[in-house]
Amino acid sequence: MSAIQANSQKTSRRKPKSSILFHADANDPDMLYFSRFNAFDPYIALTLGRKKVGISHAMEYGRMEKESDFDEILLLSEVQAGARKRFNLEQGQAANTSQMVAHLAKEYGIDEFKVGDRFPTGLAFALRDAGIQVSPCKPGTLFPERIIKNNDEIKLMKKANEAACAGFQIVAKTLAESKVKKGQLIHSGRVLTAERIRELIGQATLGKGAVALHTIASPGDQAVDNHCAGYGPIREGELIVVDIFPRRQEDGYWGDMTRTFLKGKASDAQRRLVRTVKKAHQMSLDMIKPGATGSKVHRDVQAFFVKEGYETTTDTSQPEGFFHALGHGVGLEIHESPIIAPRGKWRFKKGMVVTTEPGLYYYGLGGCRIEDSLQVTADGNQKLAKAPYKWEIA
Amino acid sequence: MSAIQANSQKTSRRKPKSSILFHADANDPDMLYFSRFNAFDPYIALTLGRKKVGISHAMEYGRMEKESDFDEILLLSEVQAGARKRFNLEQGQAANTSQMVAHLAKEYGIDEFKVGDRFPTGLAFALRDAGIQVSPCKPGTLFPERIIKNNDEIKLMKKANEAACAGFQIVAKTLAESKVKKGQLIHSGRVLTAERIRELIGQATLGKGAVALHTIASPGDQAVDNHCAGYGPIREGELIVVDIFPRRQEDGYWGDMTRTFLKGKASDAQRRLVRTVKKAHQMSLDMIKPGATGSKVHRDVQAFFVKEGYETTTDTSQPEGFFHALGHGVGLEIHESPIIAPRGKWRFKKGMVVTTEPGLYYYGLGGCRIEDSLQVTADGNQKLAKAPYKWEIA
Repeated sequence: MSAIQANSQKTSRRKPKSSILFHADANDPDMLYFSRFNAFDPYIALTLGRKKVGISHAMEYGRMEKESDFDEILLLSEVQAGARKRFNLEQGQAANTSQMVAHLAKEYGIDEFKVGDRFPTGLAFALRDAGIQVSPCKPGTLFPERIIKNNDEIKLMKKANEAACAGFQIVAKTLAESKVKKGQLIHSGRVLTAERIRELIGQATLGKGAVALHTIASPGDQAVDNHCAGYGPIREGELIVVDIFPRRQEDGYWGDMTRTFLKGKASDAQRRLVRTVKKAHQMSLDMIKPGATGSKVHRDVQAFFVKEGYETTTDTSQPEGFFHALGHGVGLEIHESPIIAPRGKWRFKKGMVVTTEPGLYYYGLGGCRIEDSLQVTADGNQKLAKAPYKWEIA
Repeated sequence: MSAIQANSQKTSRRKPKSSILFHADANDPDMLYFSRFNAFDPYIALTLGRKKVGISHAMEYGRMEKESDFDEILLLSEVQAGARKRFNLEQGQAANTSQMVAHLAKEYGIDEFKVGDRFPTGLAFALRDAGIQVSPCKPGTLFPERIIKNNDEIKLMKKANEAACAGFQIVAKTLAESKVKKGQLIHSGRVLTAERIRELIGQATLGKGAVALHTIASPGDQAVDNHCAGYGPIREGELIVVDIFPRRQEDGYWGDMTRTFLKGKASDAQRRLVRTVKKAHQMSLDMIKPGATGSKVHRDVQAFFVKEGYETTTDTSQPEGFFHALGHGVGLEIHESPIIAPRGKWRFKKGMVVTTEPGLYYYGLGGCRIEDSLQVTADGNQKLAKAPYKWEIA
């Protein structure tokens, strides 16, 4: 680990210099992309020329050295000491983060910090007040290359989606094993609830190294309230929307898949609903390929639903029909660029990873959503992982 | 759900008005504290006088109405429409977040937004550019009252710590069931690894409604690298530091506890290490009470370790000894105010929840840390949950 003084000598100070600055933990997808370091406390990182530099607490140094992509790691205690000297702080007074960053800026002749859209405001304003230019990027523009996934990333995202598949497997098994008693499902001697299904899914994805935090297991009308996680007993003959989006603990990549289930015998209306969503899902699989426009795929699916008699109402606080985006990019964020929605002119490119998740939701009937995560290939797309579409469980 | 127009009439515009503004998801502890709404996508919330107002996508409306603390919920689509009209956007062009917030500011006569330290810079700068004052608070000062937990919060944090206890229970059981073969532990026919222990812990905490994301199960010298999560086979006679900090899925409260284990027979040096840490732990329990100074408790523990012959070296990239803070506040953040460290003049108050977690770490010997989460009571402290301290497992 080289000291700051040693490095600063290598650096030319002739022209104004720009650096990308981070202060966040591994929840910041750009910082994680930049560092590949799974930090659970916020820390400072920046670019010095082409070098990626992380500032590490002594306690994190060993792990950062082993696990991160940093070209160089500076000890926080040394940056701290430098800042205290520069700002003439009294004995025992610690430099704050903005003083440490200001110190680094002076030391390396940095005039401007480029920061992500979600960079913390407190630090940004303090740096500006200290005379350092801070330039926030628009959302998603710090590393626009994140939209195209390389083979290593695809491999990790396959694993993330396989974790979701393990979740569907346990749901199907549990529903099959459940007995019906007065319309309610009984499993292992207990009433089967949405909460219990979520717990089983969580344990299954963990077994595959991924955490599923906001899993949806939403029976009946609850699924129409689209972000309702689902609660209470599961009933015979109710559609259950199960949306699993696990995040890998090691590297932070997300999977995202949805299946719809029903225990017992579906009604004709439910069957027609599921069949229509399945057809829409297949339509989207046929259309998603390099060159195709995201908005057209969404609108074609929307038009298909209308043609089949499934209207959408969104101008109320209780929307029904097909009221969400057809899909979205996924990677180090669960929702990232691109969004497959009615508007926008962007086209699919090879290497994008997107979900397609058509769904229909009506009070009295319940909801159905079918979702897969796809990688866009040279001439079409490929599912990152496969789970059965069987939904009516005897 | 009332429309903006209706509300704005109720609002006096005579004097400059300040509002607290948020744009984040449930990972922002201040926003979660304010809203009690477990959102997984960022959304806008603000104060209008004494009212808490959330801006909701139609898809989230139902859930927000049921689950949040908001006094009023505005539909995103209406705010969107208002912003588009105000800024004369073309047909089909969507208003961005800063335009929507600027619209709300004009509509309600707000001159200044008070924001948290981690408020997104992109939005803050855009609002400033639009002539709206943005005033970031210093870290931890937006809701300083968060440091004192009420009875409802204590109840939830007890549950979070009970989830950690379920983790220790499965670790002790697994170690007891393991057979030793050529120095390695074998469980269920497989070599027992740190990764497997972490998985078992994760499944156990999930069964209690909490997610343990960065669990540490760190054997031997790995524990000296203090943030190393631990990897590879567990060996007989090695100290294993197990630090479990689960977050409740429903409400976001954290638990935080650590136990140290060893399978087989400990050496005299290991036994003395664990005994000394246990004594330090008890010392801290005896000292933590209203009026006591956090820094004194830390320094007394430190002095005790030195007296017992356990020196600390921190000025290298491989620190040894007692090199971390004795403890920290915990609540909606895993690390929050106050920090029990050598410096600082703050005193314990009734209702604070803190960890105490003395530890000693040496290469060749391994590490030992013992941690409990405590609530400060009128005349001392109380553990939020209890797990056995038995560490040597036959």
